Amino acid sequence: MIALMMVSTATAANDNKVYQFDKPLYGAAYYSEYTPTDRLDEDIRLMKQAGLSVVRVGESTWSLYEPQDGVFRFEWMDRILDKLHAAGIKVILGTPTYSIPSWMAAEHPEVLSQTVDGRQSHYGIRQNMDLQNPTYRRYCERIIRKMMEHFAHHPAIIGYQVDNEVEARSIDNQDYFEGFRDFIKTSFHNNLDSLNRRWGLNYWGMNINKWEDFYDRKGVTNPSYKLWWERWNRKVTADFLNWQVDIVNEYKRPDQFVTHCFMPAFCNIDQVEAFRQMEYPAINVYYTMQDAQDGMWIGYASDYMRPICKRHNFLVTETNAQGTGWSSRDQFPPYDGQLRQNMYAFLAGGANMVEYWHWATLHYGQETYWRGILGHDGQPNRVYAEFKKGAAELDKIGSELVNLKIHNRVAMLFSHDSKFGLDFMPYTSGDQYKEYFIYESLYKQNIECDILPVDKMQDFSAYDVLIVPPLYLATDALLQKISDFVKRGGEVVMFYKSGYCDQDDDVRAMLAPGPLSDACGFHYQEYSSINKLQLKPNDIGASDNTVSTWMEFLQLTTAKPLASVDHQFFGKWPCITENAYGKGHLIYIGTVPSRDILNKLIARAVNRKGISVGETYPIVLRSGVNGKGRNIHYIFNYSYAPKTVAYPFKDSKSLLDSQNLSQGSTVSIEPWGVVIGEEK
Amino acid sequence: MIALMMVSTATAANDNKVYQFDKPLYGAAYYSEYTPTDRLDEDIRLMKQAGLSVVRVGESTWSLYEPQDGVFRFEWMDRILDKLHAAGIKVILGTPTYSIPSWMAAEHPEVLSQTVDGRQSHYGIRQNMDLQNPTYRRYCERIIRKMMEHFAHHPAIIGYQVDNEVEARSIDNQDYFEGFRDFIKTSFHNNLDSLNRRWGLNYWGMNINKWEDFYDRKGVTNPSYKLWWERWNRKVTADFLNWQVDIVNEYKRPDQFVTHCFMPAFCNIDQVEAFRQMEYPAINVYYTMQDAQDGMWIGYASDYMRPICKRHNFLVTETNAQGTGWSSRDQFPPYDGQLRQNMYAFLAGGANMVEYWHWATLHYGQETYWRGILGHDGQPNRVYAEFKKGAAELDKIGSELVNLKIHNRVAMLFSHDSKFGLDFMPYTSGDQYKEYFIYESLYKQNIECDILPVDKMQDFSAYDVLIVPPLYLATDALLQKISDFVKRGGEVVMFYKSGYCDQDDDVRAMLAPGPLSDACGFHYQEYSSINKLQLKPNDIGASDNTVSTWMEFLQLTTAKPLASVDHQFFGKWPCITENAYGKGHLIYIGTVPSRDILNKLIARAVNRKGISVGETYPIVLRSGVNGKGRNIHYIFNYSYAPKTVAYPFKDSKSLLDSQNLSQGSTVSIEPWGVVIGEEK
Amino acid sequence: MIALMMVSTATAANDNKVYQFDKPLYGAAYYSEYTPTDRLDEDIRLMKQAGLSVVRVGESTWSLYEPQDGVFRFEWMDRILDKLHAAGIKVILGTPTYSIPSWMAAEHPEVLSQTVDGRQSHYGIRQNMDLQNPTYRRYCERIIRKMMEHFAHHPAIIGYQVDNEVEARSIDNQDYFEGFRDFIKTSFHNNLDSLNRRWGLNYWGMNINKWEDFYDRKGVTNPSYKLWWERWNRKVTADFLNWQVDIVNEYKRPDQFVTHCFMPAFCNIDQVEAFRQMEYPAINVYYTMQDAQDGMWIGYASDYMRPICKRHNFLVTETNAQGTGWSSRDQFPPYDGQLRQNMYAFLAGGANMVEYWHWATLHYGQETYWRGILGHDGQPNRVYAEFKKGAAELDKIGSELVNLKIHNRVAMLFSHDSKFGLDFMPYTSGDQYKEYFIYESLYKQNIECDILPVDKMQDFSAYDVLIVPPLYLATDALLQKISDFVKRGGEVVMFYKSGYCDQDDDVRAMLAPGPLSDACGFHYQEYSSINKLQLKPNDIGASDNTVSTWMEFLQLTTAKPLASVDHQFFGKWPCITENAYGKGHLIYIGTVPSRDILNKLIARAVNRKGISVGETYPIVLRSGVNGKGRNIHYIFNYSYAPKTVAYPFKDSKSLLDSQNLSQGSTVSIEPWGVVIGEEK
Repeated sequence: MIALMMVSTATAANDNKVYQFDKPLYGAAYYSEYTPTDRLDEDIRLMKQAGLSVVRVGESTWSLYEPQDGVFRFEWMDRILDKLHAAGIKVILGTPTYSIPSWMAAEHPEVLSQTVDGRQSHYGIRQNMDLQNPTYRRYCERIIRKMMEHFAHHPAIIGYQVDNEVEARSIDNQDYFEGFRDFIKTSFHNNLDSLNRRWGLNYWGMNINKWEDFYDRKGVTNPSYKLWWERWNRKVTADFLNWQVDIVNEYKRPDQFVTHCFMPAFCNIDQVEAFRQMEYPAINVYYTMQDAQDGMWIGYASDYMRPICKRHNFLVTETNAQGTGWSSRDQFPPYDGQLRQNMYAFLAGGANMVEYWHWATLHYGQETYWRGILGHDGQPNRVYAEFKKGAAELDKIGSELVNLKIHNRVAMLFSHDSKFGLDFMPYTSGDQYKEYFIYESLYKQNIECDILPVDKMQDFSAYDVLIVPPLYLATDALLQKISDFVKRGGEVVMFYKSGYCDQDDDVRAMLAPGPLSDACGFHYQEYSSINKLQLKPNDIGASDNTVSTWMEFLQLTTAKPLASVDHQFFGKWPCITENAYGKGHLIYIGTVPSRDILNKLIARAVNRKGISVGETYPIVLRSGVNGKGRNIHYIFNYSYAPKTVAYPFKDSKSLLDSQNLSQGSTVSIEPWGVVIGEEK
Repeated sequence: MIALMMVSTATAANDNKVYQFDKPLYGAAYYSEYTPTDRLDEDIRLMKQAGLSVVRVGESTWSLYEPQDGVFRFEWMDRILDKLHAAGIKVILGTPTYSIPSWMAAEHPEVLSQTVDGRQSHYGIRQNMDLQNPTYRRYCERIIRKMMEHFAHHPAIIGYQVDNEVEARSIDNQDYFEGFRDFIKTSFHNNLDSLNRRWGLNYWGMNINKWEDFYDRKGVTNPSYKLWWERWNRKVTADFLNWQVDIVNEYKRPDQFVTHCFMPAFCNIDQVEAFRQMEYPAINVYYTMQDAQDGMWIGYASDYMRPICKRHNFLVTETNAQGTGWSSRDQFPPYDGQLRQNMYAFLAGGANMVEYWHWATLHYGQETYWRGILGHDGQPNRVYAEFKKGAAELDKIGSELVNLKIHNRVAMLFSHDSKFGLDFMPYTSGDQYKEYFIYESLYKQNIECDILPVDKMQDFSAYDVLIVPPLYLATDALLQKISDFVKRGGEVVMFYKSGYCDQDDDVRAMLAPGPLSDACGFHYQEYSSINKLQLKPNDIGASDNTVSTWMEFLQLTTAKPLASVDHQFFGKWPCITENAYGKGHLIYIGTVPSRDILNKLIARAVNRKGISVGETYPIVLRSGVNGKGRNIHYIFNYSYAPKTVAYPFKDSKSLLDSQNLSQGSTVSIEPWGVVIGEEK
Repeated sequence: MIALMMVSTATAANDNKVYQFDKPLYGAAYYSEYTPTDRLDEDIRLMKQAGLSVVRVGESTWSLYEPQDGVFRFEWMDRILDKLHAAGIKVILGTPTYSIPSWMAAEHPEVLSQTVDGRQSHYGIRQNMDLQNPTYRRYCERIIRKMMEHFAHHPAIIGYQVDNEVEARSIDNQDYFEGFRDFIKTSFHNNLDSLNRRWGLNYWGMNINKWEDFYDRKGVTNPSYKLWWERWNRKVTADFLNWQVDIVNEYKRPDQFVTHCFMPAFCNIDQVEAFRQMEYPAINVYYTMQDAQDGMWIGYASDYMRPICKRHNFLVTETNAQGTGWSSRDQFPPYDGQLRQNMYAFLAGGANMVEYWHWATLHYGQETYWRGILGHDGQPNRVYAEFKKGAAELDKIGSELVNLKIHNRVAMLFSHDSKFGLDFMPYTSGDQYKEYFIYESLYKQNIECDILPVDKMQDFSAYDVLIVPPLYLATDALLQKISDFVKRGGEVVMFYKSGYCDQDDDVRAMLAPGPLSDACGFHYQEYSSINKLQLKPNDIGASDNTVSTWMEFLQLTTAKPLASVDHQFFGKWPCITENAYGKGHLIYIGTVPSRDILNKLIARAVNRKGISVGETYPIVLRSGVNGKGRNIHYIFNYSYAPKTVAYPFKDSKSLLDSQNLSQGSTVSIEPWGVVIGEEK
């Protein structure tokens, strides 16, 4: 277990030697070993014909590499790598640890996870292991070392992916629980009095007076315990990834990189720590196409990813080709143009690679209907043709699009801990943290932002405006930083419940919002659930003038009321306020606002910093600076109707058709289309 | 196990020596040990300032009393008691047995319950023990004896609460099951033939031909077995409480009382047996405030409690202060006036004490949002101010309100067994027994009633009218008593399915409604589920003339039809009838009536006894005789609009403002307000 | 385990010697041992009075036959059989193996099933055994042999029912799993390479490289594994029944038959194999009466049953008398006339016996409200009177109705494997296979059909038209037979997804619909989920011109488009087509059509074969040839309104009232009534 506790102290590898992108890579995951008949040559022929430049291989093939305990077979993959290399296709090779071979489950059933709700995992699905199990770890280490010894020098390989979409999911094996107990022992300096006090264990008489009495997660109701358990889950995942990176780094060439892919919909991962040693972190991004296609989820994922990997552009290792799903329900293959549009949306967000999942569609297994570029027939099709078109365009203009850097003045905070804290004590039946609801107001008003994982990243110096979803859990220090940000001239839009609890999920024993009271210009003692209520007339300017769900009874000191509800009782207190504090302002939303109110409040904040709202969705604008230092502008049309806009940027050249784009001139964008301008 | 089987034979303690109420006590549960910092002095200062007269302490602090097995620490509570006593605040002290210390779970995991659905309870929540477990019982006995030895002489203590909201919830440990088997053996006089016959075990060939083959509850489908299992659960709870009372009684002073609090929403408790030895039984009553505040649940709980503890007035140990809940959903703090209104509603129902849960709000743990009088900030607030106002009023007029006795002429029956019987064989998707639906017609028409737990209390001699929710399970003797009640001149309103099964949940093998046929004046062989159907024109006088869900095909002998549905097939049989039987009448409702039909039928029955419906909800009237023998009348306004009524009682004095209230004069009641008259 | 694997090779018993029906039997299941008091004589008196001719007894009385392990008591049943025989009532005797005695569960808990979701069954309900458990099988064999030795010569007994509604439900005991592994070993000729390839186990690296690593069903996601597991469940059930038949056949008289009853709503039973050795297979058919009575489920069950037992007419061992249910919800006793109408509907479908479940209603147990002919009072009632009327009519005309043979020209295919395949990969939230949706178009347009279990029965030579619900799984051979059927002149209406997967649930690696492409006249590469969409104007003639849920993008070769949707994108491909292929036509429905579209397409297909749609529901027509070779026609009125029709058959005599029925003359049918014509 020593190894697990070791934190790698290696500094970032010398970035200059690692693989450099001269244009975006465009490709797919490829599993030649899954096809019912051997069609490797035919697949490579079709890849070449389509202009595919990269594939990811081998992340779930442990049982083919090691068909029996200690018996290794890598030659079948050599053949694949050789042929890909001969065709000039670059390869990212996975470590296969997310799905164990059947012999391991049969011989060592203890590696299978037991879950928090008392269930025993069974073989037959991926990601069902106890990540801390020493036997599992020993086998992982051996297969990774064997793989790396065998493959590291293969010229096709530009990088390695360690594991796949890893996350500690409900594991509660005895050793996992004991690891948690040790983590708590360490974190609380072996001090049970401190633990009992900070977790409030006097309540219901559940103090722990010797470590042997420390109880496991299964029956726990205490929110502080739950919070720390989730922190443990995040730590296990990050440690597991860093442990794999350390092993891979012993073998890989300097020109090879390491990556890992995660699903950026809320994931219980400490991305900052998990990606610390990786040159090009990656994401897997899935969304609904057809009428629902809006690019928002691509935007969110990109804006989340960029701040985490500031040194490098990130990669996209998986995204929709045709319809997706673990059944044939909700199959929504792209309308004409949508596949290409999404590819550009990723590049507009800062990606350096777009890979589909996957090249071909499976004929068996759980993901039979998670359809690839090729369908079950293995022949070129409508999506293949659109891939080919996109590849040809990238071949022509990709060098202008790669290595895009984006410097946003607006940041939206994201707190894993706050999201959990709200989930433990929900105030509504649906989504608590509302990060997507809030992000949508930014995205659809074309207010570009970064998303900051604020439990770990708290430097706001690059920003003018902070958007703060319910910051339910925070240290005093973080609240002070936000207050200071306002005082120094920043603009903040902040949601209800911010500042309510400390870092242990204990409610602060003071007038809410505690340390934020000065910056907010009010305090409150009460709150209530509410139905949808109308606001009294106000100056916000929203057409849907309603709020709902939750309302705090704000007692103003220095803040000005912006709105209060039209109600005999609740109308006694304002529910939206604005406070001039130092050189900046803090808009506080003590209720769940309508979409329109939120739009207006966010616009009000950014306007003060000279950011105005022009074109809005279904027109989406995204801008950045390419690797050559030139300004690049994307204009997307997320609709089935042709659109025209007045070109809102400085005089540019249209990269796709070499036309001039003068500022203010009329630009047409076809349905599900994109125009890309490069400033002159 | 001998002790468990022993039934205490002690007669009621000499009531004269026990604590006597000269005015209602008004207070809160108080947990100084839960506050993040020591603020005992500040809390007592605020309590004194507010006029609080009583606190309940210590019912979930086992792990502080006994931090390790056999190590006892009571001095911290002495300090609290001493300071409360110095401040003149009375104390009710709990036995802490509803939440075990962590060392007990770690060292004796067998005390944790295993449930009927096969799950194992885990530590981390209260009330997860096997109540019959000998180890748990041994530890209970020791901590209670140690506590009582230490505290019994403390002058602050006026009474003891044994355990808290105890109920045998789904326990199915081996010893618990064996206890059940022994209970059945005894109840059936060791006669398996009788058991097989009465439970109908020939069906599906599930006879038990030796006691070793007696199977546990987990897979059981047989309704008779299920019924007896629930009786066992009730017996276990009552025995457990009586066992604790016996221990406490060995130590307590004659001037101290014993109580226990239960949640009067349907609880699987035999309240008659469970409260047999307690001087002042108690209830914990929670409800929704704001627009939903109607006082009905307070009325129901009071009307349920009074007949059970006829000797004494009951106590209210817990009720809403601010918002409640195990999350921050559905937070509904009171509108101005509502807290005080509820306090008076309890007194109007016969309570001698009202305690909020709790004094202050928790900063951690499952009940962080079950908010007390003080919020998380610990400072006086709107609710604190309203408490203070109420306390001042009680100080002034409380001596006229305490020890209220209420003599109602209407009783509504409540049968635990019938409720279970219906749940085992439901006839609709929602509520089966409809006790609240029925009670609402009484409450909102201001027809005051007692609620009789009729499985145990069958003396109807004090009443003129009986309201009978579906009496699906009953002995012949009970059905005879109801028939005799009618014959002697009583009025009865009875629901469908009454009389259908005997005391073992076996359907009677005779024309329904079996022994009730003469009193009902019909029999029936058939019934059907129905949609909502219109009645043919009739004399009931309801504006909503519909019935639904269920209809019996009544074949009349002496009864008169009151209504039948307008339908080609179902219209052949009446579904509501009235039978003159002896000197009384029985109205039978063989279908689910609309609210309005039910109102009219109940009014029809009580009218015959000279009880007429005057003011109705949102005006609520409650009357009683105070300890001094004077008539007290409450008039509540459950709305946000001011109301006036013609004072419907004899000339009185308004206690709150000393105004005269002449019969028939106009009385104004403010929103969420109350007027209290004392007859001259 | 040898015995379990043995497949009986006995040919069908000499049919001439077996019990022959000279009129339909009409009766009920009868459980004298369930009545609270002995009323055998009274029951038989009432049976005789009603004209009942048959009872089924004893299928769940193991614990009365064998109250202790090895102690047998049959004399109580002798008394029942003797009295029934004296009254001239025929008896079908069950083997009691579907509900084990309590001593077996107590002494051999291992016979109780463990389920796929990891639960342990408990005693207290029927059908909770591991059907493969050797101890259970040993006890089964002993009780059957003892019973048969004792009863076989009793003259009352005309036949035996082996077990009751047997099905392998979620069993996953270790021996059951090992049986599966052996079944797979055998089926794949011990070839793991073949298994890995055909199940696609390379996916997620889940290859099995030695049999010891074969993993159990619990965690499995692989659809091929799941499919074979269901085949194993079907095999176990069929083997279990054949094993019982083999034992019974050792003892029974030649004039006695063997039967078994199953629930024809989709049951995971291989009916062809399960009924192979039984002379008169049986079904238990339940439905909703009152306004929902439409006879459709009786029609479906009959049409499913007839092709399986072509040699013989089938029996109905259970059907609704009064209301049914495991609670008192959804009690829908028949309107006047409905009981008798259903009895004739069974005879019209080819049944030779109708038995109600059951004679009397239980006073205890799970099925207290599964009401029989007599209610809880045990006295004659409305349903009893209607039974008596029907029995008297059968006595008069039954000899003309018995042994009905029906020769349909239309067949609807039913594939267990396809239904499972779709459930593993559902394309919609509700029903996948839509067999009832499709059947309804046939039934309510009076297009009589057979339902063919096409995984086992693939001879289409008797039919002119095939209706093909989504044939998602099929061998190449079956697809070829359907193609050949069209080529030779057959008409086919085929649903989406047909031909998509092979017999292992692997998607075919070719252009869809694979081997059906020629007969269909198109191929496709893509499909999409869709909302409800309008079709463009077309010639189908439906008033509801909408489709929904699913659409394939059909690329036509020889087919003609019949319809395409009115949509910018999806409208590019037709979704309903017709292909002239050889001498026949194939209509393909690549989407979920409205009821009306489906009606029209099916009518279009049958019209080509000269079958026209005349009277439609609520008039239902059913015809056949009776045992004397005469044509019998039933006309049902499924409504509460009297109806008249022009008699659509050749000149006949009305059997119920001896009136003439000339072709084209006006015939009146009373509400919930029937007219039966016998051609002259």
